[in-house]
Amino acid sequence: MSEQQTSAAAGPAAASAAGAGVIDLLGLLAYARLVAFFRLAGDAELAPTLAGKGQLAEIAVSEQANYRRLHDRLRELGADPEEAMRPFVVPLDAWHARTEPQSWLESLVKAYVGDGIADDFYRRLAELADLETQALVRDTLVESGRAEFVAAQVRAAIADDPRLAGRLSLWARRLVGEALSQAQSVAARRPDLAALLGGGARESAKGGAGADDTAQPGDLAMVSRMFADLTDAHTARLEAMGLSG
Amino acid sequence: MSEQQTSAAAGPAAASAAGAGVIDLLGLLAYARLVAFFRLAGDAELAPTLAGKGQLAEIAVSEQANYRRLHDRLRELGADPEEAMRPFVVPLDAWHARTEPQSWLESLVKAYVGDGIADDFYRRLAELADLETQALVRDTLVESGRAEFVAAQVRAAIADDPRLAGRLSLWARRLVGEALSQAQSVAARRPDLAALLGGGARESAKGGAGADDTAQPGDLAMVSRMFADLTDAHTARLEAMGLSG
Repeated sequence: MSEQQTSAAAGPAAASAAGAGVIDLLGLLAYARLVAFFRLAGDAELAPTLAGKGQLAEIAVSEQANYRRLHDRLRELGADPEEAMRPFVVPLDAWHARTEPQSWLESLVKAYVGDGIADDFYRRLAELADLETQALVRDTLVESGRAEFVAAQVRAAIADDPRLAGRLSLWARRLVGEALSQAQSVAARRPDLAALLGGGARESAKGGAGADDTAQPGDLAMVSRMFADLTDAHTARLEAMGLSG
Repeated sequence: MSEQQTSAAAGPAAASAAGAGVIDLLGLLAYARLVAFFRLAGDAELAPTLAGKGQLAEIAVSEQANYRRLHDRLRELGADPEEAMRPFVVPLDAWHARTEPQSWLESLVKAYVGDGIADDFYRRLAELADLETQALVRDTLVESGRAEFVAAQVRAAIADDPRLAGRLSLWARRLVGEALSQAQSVAARRPDLAALLGGGARESAKGGAGADDTAQPGDLAMVSRMFADLTDAHTARLEAMGLSG
């Protein structure tokens, strides 16, 4: 990866580390969007109505559009988009394999809660990158249209059968637990990305020594802390669906 | 279904039959696009590379855009889009179930040959409808971009392993055979749509008696004749991939 990938105004060593971190972030997001597209499209088979299938197709398509933008941005930065995505294939595929919805309602909760917390996490990560990356990441986050579509359907289902609330609350907890575990695994394997979490403070403490090959224990703890910080938005999403945390 | 659904300038009885036929045609096309979207997205899991997955996602998304346009047009005509699509769920799902690709190459050939012949068929049907429907159907047909993407990959695979040519030619024949069989089943069940095939000639012979509940044997024969007429374009697609008919 080359120095020109970063548009940060820091010194060369810091720029190199930040640049690789940004490429990692964009690669992670691009693959997250691509795989979300495929999973949402696949889950739509569970939809009980043709209208529901059509709506989930619409949501899936918005993920593909985001994938396309992130992919193009990677190319613009001189990176190979597929190379940039590759490190995240295993953890993201693992997250989806461990959280395969068994019903239409589970798939809706996943599309809202799972992608919601992931987006909050990506947004936080992006805050530590350059302004252009921040703007792009913000633009490619899930729009609120999904929230209304999902929350209304889940609420209606719970009104019909109140026992669903407990089962779906458990499902939401599992989604978050699996997300945290995959996020920690990513942070452990991608020191440049984890360094974004450590931010400028850590770079200067190291005297601009650039990226090394292992994440600092502090970075992993930071992942947990970041997840803890995301609780409020997560709880709000649960409440919108009539679920508890 | 109401008279205002048709914009044809024919007499009232003919207009009513043509109107229902046009709603059927748009419903058929809308569901064909929606299900093609899901199948293409599902088949992308077979792609050997991340770049291939991304390209198939792109193709899938273009199908969803076409679905959206047909869906909106049905609503514009005062029809319930889901109602209009419903009669075609069983035959189109059956077509996909009988032609489930077992490999990446089979899915590529299906996306090109299967959707290609279906589109030729839809275009012919649309020629018998009003001008606005004709234009919409033409606009929502598969763009040529897909042809190049698919043909290049299949040719390259055959160059690597010439034995593939025979197997994929057989696969293409099966795709067309299953398509013909589903098209005949649709024509038998949807007299209004079959009447589009019979066109104005049959309407006037019947003295404007409107649609009845059974397709005429002539309509079913017409489906076979139409398929036979599509042979040239089909053969050209096979040749583009290095396959024989």
